[in-house]
Amino acid sequence: MHADDIAGFFAELPRLAADAHLLLDYRIECTGDPRAAAAHLASEQSTAQWRRVAVDEDYRPRFAAKVVDLEVETVLPRTSYPLEPAVDEPVSVCRVRIAHPWANFGPRLPNMLSAVLGEGAYFAPGIPVVKLLDIEFPNSFLEQFDGPKYGIAGLRALWQIHDRPFFFGVIKPNIGLDPEPFAELGLAAWRGGLDIAKDDEMLADPDWSPIAERSRRLGAARRQAERETGVPKVYLANITDEVDRLVELHDTVVSNGANAVMVNALPVGLSAVRMLRKQARVPLIAHFPVIAAMSRLPHFGVHTRVLTKLQRLAGFDVVIMPGFGPRMMTAEDEVLACIAACTEPMGPIRPALPVPGGSDSAATLERVHGRIGGPDFGFVPGRGVFGHPQGPTGGAASLRQAWQAIADGVPVKERASRHTELAAALDTFG
Amino acid sequence: MHADDIAGFFAELPRLAADAHLLLDYRIECTGDPRAAAAHLASEQSTAQWRRVAVDEDYRPRFAAKVVDLEVETVLPRTSYPLEPAVDEPVSVCRVRIAHPWANFGPRLPNMLSAVLGEGAYFAPGIPVVKLLDIEFPNSFLEQFDGPKYGIAGLRALWQIHDRPFFFGVIKPNIGLDPEPFAELGLAAWRGGLDIAKDDEMLADPDWSPIAERSRRLGAARRQAERETGVPKVYLANITDEVDRLVELHDTVVSNGANAVMVNALPVGLSAVRMLRKQARVPLIAHFPVIAAMSRLPHFGVHTRVLTKLQRLAGFDVVIMPGFGPRMMTAEDEVLACIAACTEPMGPIRPALPVPGGSDSAATLERVHGRIGGPDFGFVPGRGVFGHPQGPTGGAASLRQAWQAIADGVPVKERASRHTELAAALDTFG
Repeated sequence: MHADDIAGFFAELPRLAADAHLLLDYRIECTGDPRAAAAHLASEQSTAQWRRVAVDEDYRPRFAAKVVDLEVETVLPRTSYPLEPAVDEPVSVCRVRIAHPWANFGPRLPNMLSAVLGEGAYFAPGIPVVKLLDIEFPNSFLEQFDGPKYGIAGLRALWQIHDRPFFFGVIKPNIGLDPEPFAELGLAAWRGGLDIAKDDEMLADPDWSPIAERSRRLGAARRQAERETGVPKVYLANITDEVDRLVELHDTVVSNGANAVMVNALPVGLSAVRMLRKQARVPLIAHFPVIAAMSRLPHFGVHTRVLTKLQRLAGFDVVIMPGFGPRMMTAEDEVLACIAACTEPMGPIRPALPVPGGSDSAATLERVHGRIGGPDFGFVPGRGVFGHPQGPTGGAASLRQAWQAIADGVPVKERASRHTELAAALDTFG
Repeated sequence: MHADDIAGFFAELPRLAADAHLLLDYRIECTGDPRAAAAHLASEQSTAQWRRVAVDEDYRPRFAAKVVDLEVETVLPRTSYPLEPAVDEPVSVCRVRIAHPWANFGPRLPNMLSAVLGEGAYFAPGIPVVKLLDIEFPNSFLEQFDGPKYGIAGLRALWQIHDRPFFFGVIKPNIGLDPEPFAELGLAAWRGGLDIAKDDEMLADPDWSPIAERSRRLGAARRQAERETGVPKVYLANITDEVDRLVELHDTVVSNGANAVMVNALPVGLSAVRMLRKQARVPLIAHFPVIAAMSRLPHFGVHTRVLTKLQRLAGFDVVIMPGFGPRMMTAEDEVLACIAACTEPMGPIRPALPVPGGSDSAATLERVHGRIGGPDFGFVPGRGVFGHPQGPTGGAASLRQAWQAIADGVPVKERASRHTELAAALDTFG
């Protein structure tokens, strides 16, 4: 691009209509002139060719994405990551903020993803390394979406869970167990104080555990647990499947007694989740397969914060995400950014409940609560409940005992002397 | 895991039922014992906890994914890519082949993706860096899918394109132009010899170019071009949109005269494409936004070969992909691997037409044809047709002239003296 052409892709943010633009924050590593690279980033995601041959016209003023901020942070001798084909020249590390007129694609998730994570982002000339760090949406855009049906407050009211975290448990063995003993494990955990017994994200509708039968068994067990304990219990069925089965499976499992459904968000697709949201009569819970493939590296791909915001926008009430500690290979500030993406103000869109997970148990609750700084989260052990030496009832009880210690301001370890379940959990998982 | 536990996740491939397993090839960088890491990779994608507490049972023989090959290639002082949190210890670079019993998830794309690109791949203890390089599917699995409706032979018969590449062109300006002048550009290009005039992947159904009106205009222009030229012409409409609009948009544009539809595969979701395939009455064409976010780095994420195979499996007749040359930042062997993934034998699944693209024109056709070594591909310029100095008719003509030179065994440059369109293309884009 010539210098004149480049100028057509720059603008001052205050001169643009705020409601008409998404704000995109990218970190790029670029060869050559950073202004030219940033202009390409804007051009390739919008009006790559802005006039017809031999016609005096310019589609950039109305339709081009515009660079509204460009800061060169440093220059590196080469890209942060070796590439094939190799880029063997110095690169400028830049923060680029782009204002993209969303009328180009409308309030549609697939079309927005195509713009912000498409050829514009990953094939802009001179930008071999790029990460989309954040998106800000104007209310005019957000108002086109339903978002979570319940939100955190709605879930608390629905399930009568107040002033404490939501206790989830992944029924284990996750794969291979018949529906009947699977339901017995759920019942045992509910009796011990679990709120939500859930299918593993890998367990959906296999021949050896058809979801129709499994949801009947678990639905009956859930009602029995509610009668015994006098409080609401939740069976969270994983209805992840081909898109044209989602609504049908939702209807089946809900009529059989499941009172929440899980969808593996990216494998099914965010747009399919948005479709399901329009029909769903129970809370929607997201699980995170595939996301790490595009978010793990600090400087390439897309930040999990963005994908968390999009899951909330698509209508998930709960977002399960990689949590704290070395087990889940995710930096603490990234986990906190994803939690904030669930709960921070987002125009008319309700908050989603964040569930940072990964090898949790009564031994990790204090740490997780401490990092989040409040009770608005879900806690999702698997083995920590279902691999507890005293079984799922003991495993679930150990969570509630650990929480009671935290609520009482007592170190969890101290409280272990009162409860064999908690003592066993700390001993086994601590 | 203990040594005994690890052994339960290993098997000899010849002892497993071939039809019951997918074969997954991963490259991993692991800390500690490679056997333990590989066992975790298998365990986390299948039976993470393989028995109940206090029950003598083992779900691994039937349900566990098994390591069937493990080769340590080298040891590096640290991971290929700096991570947060950092992994500051030596890592073994290994190739791991895993046989995964697909009855665990059935012939379902979202559930398969959850298994092979989920927590198992990206959160297996001791494996901070991993890339899924390939998947082999047994016929028993492939037979559950429709795959491409036409395949390359079917497209050639349908569109009467024989013994040469398929000439696509992306109508430009891609964003901002009203339907009427947009159709005039398509008509001009068809007159010059273009086969398929297509919407840009960023142009779908915006207010200023409603797809219903655009497809009416382009449908009429296509029929006019067919009357004038006496050969079939194709208008490829981009129906990328929210999942619950796909079938409706397909029906609208086809009844208006579009005779092929494009879907941005990952933004919409492969499963939604599979759903559309069941209803579609015209060829389905894939575009590639988002894919690079998880495939660009040589040693992390997933290889594009895998995603190409999955697009074919989902039912795309044509797969547009990043092509040759430095513009598209993709190594030549990767492009060739993706082309092979479209065309190589795949049980009962028909071949898809590969369209390696990126800043093409008459000046790049010889190179692309040379690398592919035959005419079974699509060629998809944008500016090379619609930014040609003599307009789209001249741009399209320059492609056909370049092809005639290649078919005649004459260097394209030599042939330019005969044709002003070809000469202008080489001069402008060469």
